[in-house]
Amino acid sequence: MRVPINTITPDTPSAEVIGWAHEIRDLGGLAFLLIRDRTGIIQVTVPKKKVAPEIAETIRAISRESVVRVTGTVKPEGKAPGGRELIPDAIEIVSLSATPLPLDVAEKVPAELDTRLDNRFLDARRPRVSAIFKIRNAVQHATRNFFFENGFIEINTSKIVAAATEGGTELFPIAYFEKEAFLNQSPQLYKQMMMAAGFEKVYEIGPIFRAEEHNTTKHLNEATSIDIEVSFTDHLGVMQTLEDLIRDIYQFVDKTCSDAIADLGLDDFAVPEKGFPRLPYSEAIEIASATCEEDIAYGDDIGTAAERAIGEEMGRLYFIVDWPSSIRPYYAMPYENDPEICKAFDMMHPRMELSSGAQRVHQHDLLVEQIAKKGLNPENFEFYLNPFRFGMPPHAGWGLGAERLVTTMLGLPNVREAVLFPRDRHRVVP
Amino acid sequence: MRVPINTITPDTPSAEVIGWAHEIRDLGGLAFLLIRDRTGIIQVTVPKKKVAPEIAETIRAISRESVVRVTGTVKPEGKAPGGRELIPDAIEIVSLSATPLPLDVAEKVPAELDTRLDNRFLDARRPRVSAIFKIRNAVQHATRNFFFENGFIEINTSKIVAAATEGGTELFPIAYFEKEAFLNQSPQLYKQMMMAAGFEKVYEIGPIFRAEEHNTTKHLNEATSIDIEVSFTDHLGVMQTLEDLIRDIYQFVDKTCSDAIADLGLDDFAVPEKGFPRLPYSEAIEIASATCEEDIAYGDDIGTAAERAIGEEMGRLYFIVDWPSSIRPYYAMPYENDPEICKAFDMMHPRMELSSGAQRVHQHDLLVEQIAKKGLNPENFEFYLNPFRFGMPPHAGWGLGAERLVTTMLGLPNVREAVLFPRDRHRVVP
Repeated sequence: MRVPINTITPDTPSAEVIGWAHEIRDLGGLAFLLIRDRTGIIQVTVPKKKVAPEIAETIRAISRESVVRVTGTVKPEGKAPGGRELIPDAIEIVSLSATPLPLDVAEKVPAELDTRLDNRFLDARRPRVSAIFKIRNAVQHATRNFFFENGFIEINTSKIVAAATEGGTELFPIAYFEKEAFLNQSPQLYKQMMMAAGFEKVYEIGPIFRAEEHNTTKHLNEATSIDIEVSFTDHLGVMQTLEDLIRDIYQFVDKTCSDAIADLGLDDFAVPEKGFPRLPYSEAIEIASATCEEDIAYGDDIGTAAERAIGEEMGRLYFIVDWPSSIRPYYAMPYENDPEICKAFDMMHPRMELSSGAQRVHQHDLLVEQIAKKGLNPENFEFYLNPFRFGMPPHAGWGLGAERLVTTMLGLPNVREAVLFPRDRHRVVP
Repeated sequence: MRVPINTITPDTPSAEVIGWAHEIRDLGGLAFLLIRDRTGIIQVTVPKKKVAPEIAETIRAISRESVVRVTGTVKPEGKAPGGRELIPDAIEIVSLSATPLPLDVAEKVPAELDTRLDNRFLDARRPRVSAIFKIRNAVQHATRNFFFENGFIEINTSKIVAAATEGGTELFPIAYFEKEAFLNQSPQLYKQMMMAAGFEKVYEIGPIFRAEEHNTTKHLNEATSIDIEVSFTDHLGVMQTLEDLIRDIYQFVDKTCSDAIADLGLDDFAVPEKGFPRLPYSEAIEIASATCEEDIAYGDDIGTAAERAIGEEMGRLYFIVDWPSSIRPYYAMPYENDPEICKAFDMMHPRMELSSGAQRVHQHDLLVEQIAKKGLNPENFEFYLNPFRFGMPPHAGWGLGAERLVTTMLGLPNVREAVLFPRDRHRVVP
């Protein structure tokens, strides 16, 4: 029976493996074949005169990245990967690869990101690339376990919606039978409705869609959002939940993904310390205006340059709190004693924003007022406002970008590295 | 500190609860208030002369479905729900509900499904409705744990795509900047690409979108699909995985959701027995043509009436196997010795189809041939076909409808009952 390659040790007597021909070297009397499966690499050593003639013949027919099955005897071999080699009794070509390959899986020839994404099925064979998605798998698993253990109910809300969350910009329109509809940019309104429904703690991990035109290393037009909403708590409550979750995820990755971490060369992978600092927006602006070349003043959004300047100063995961109400969405709760600022926060990695959240306005009349203040027409928000009339509890929540979390955790240069098939202004294939 | 209502027993000395005013009865000197949170219901008993006057006053101000906080002494009371009642020391109205309610949460007045879905935030306060979503939460949690424990890698594939899986029908078009794009109807092609990428075992739980016009109790235009793809196995391998998963899910629900099962009145909830029968398509057609009023012959699709007739005969979860190649997609692997039938299967509940799968064609040239046989142009499938040239392993997989699984598991009359915000021909709000 076929076994995963990483289970074979120098002491294993014999083994059957299936995998891809990672490298083939034919030295005349001796041939070496590196076989790769998703767990590792093993060297198949073929002393041509000592093996059956059909094995030598098959070896010659194998092209790189073909799928092959090899059965043989395992021997210790200090120079081979994992300190062992496989001497074949039988080799079978399961699926022959065409040549030349559009991308070099063995990474001897570097490739541009665009070429890699065009050939993602080959690119993702590279251990350094598949490692990212093994870790992303662990990140999402740890996230869901955290929520399940803490009494959250997973919800699946519609991605096809009739109304915009924040007034209609940056939406992709859909032809939905004879109706006008859009791809949802955030489950915000739906998770708030589930607070009205008494679900108390909900989460969703799902796609969000934003028709933003900018083409940067941190934006995607289709992304995965980790969203929560919690009743009977405030912004401070859900900030603590966020910090606990992030540390939990890092711990789980640290514990379960050592091979993938090694494949990525992350020698300094570390779980963030407790107590993410909470920097008031006003102080963040001071730091930015002191160190950043761009002009920035109280009341401005925090752009990329400011984000980096503040991040450099903070040097770790941190929160920016107490934002001016004027630059946060209508649903962020203003402070009772100073409504010019609100109970909103961003959770930041030194490189970029990871999460955005707030205690929400749960009072119907205040919400109508806030919507109008933003220059929006409350009448367009009827389906959203209705639940606030019939016993809406106080609540708070946040959204966390799954790709940004993985990108910053692993030090990836571009958020596209954390997506199998990224969607941007120019890319909709494959 | 506030506690969940179901943690309060007749022996609890005192408690603070927050919840919704489920029922209010004022008998003059005595008032009863039922408070409901997501865990249960407790009776608050108010002997007006014995409590502080402001409590009696607050009680009068509470409308049904308002959010209230009550602190008080717990006493055993045989006639009250859970055998205990709460005598208040303090009552606070956290969020007052308007009257009249658009929907009766206490279920004394029955409501049409459309009215319920229009007011889903109230409808989902009903214990019988929230029970469905608590169970759905458990179903998805058990599913992911099963996959994680069995070495599957979770993938998140794009929902915005440029090409159709099966030739372009039933797609919702999107305006994606200056490009033509669609909402994906299945992650089929993407999970197959991940087989080419060597991920070996992948799963995805995500939305799928189908522009089908029919309006039935088992179709949705946006649904949640549980999808897997596995390399180095065949249809029989993934059928076993499917059976194991289904039994695992039922077991997990049985073990962890007893309250929700009771709320739904499911006295006969049972885990399906091992060994789902495997009925060849030809025999399924015989059963259908013998018992079903509609004419049906070998080579026909199995429609709703036939599905029911066969389901009645089978009486349990079962597979239909060995389908004619002519009525399955091009990517289903034909039998080597009889290419008129293929290694495809459906997994059926007596009421409806739950899952569809197959061993896939992994040979490039055979796949091109199969695409052409369906009257499709292989040139339109370039991005899909390319991976098959460069070492595509043999593989198999299936898709399982999450809503149908929950609907049949819980005996719900309509698949919309298993979706918070269903999307159909006529419904895109809320």
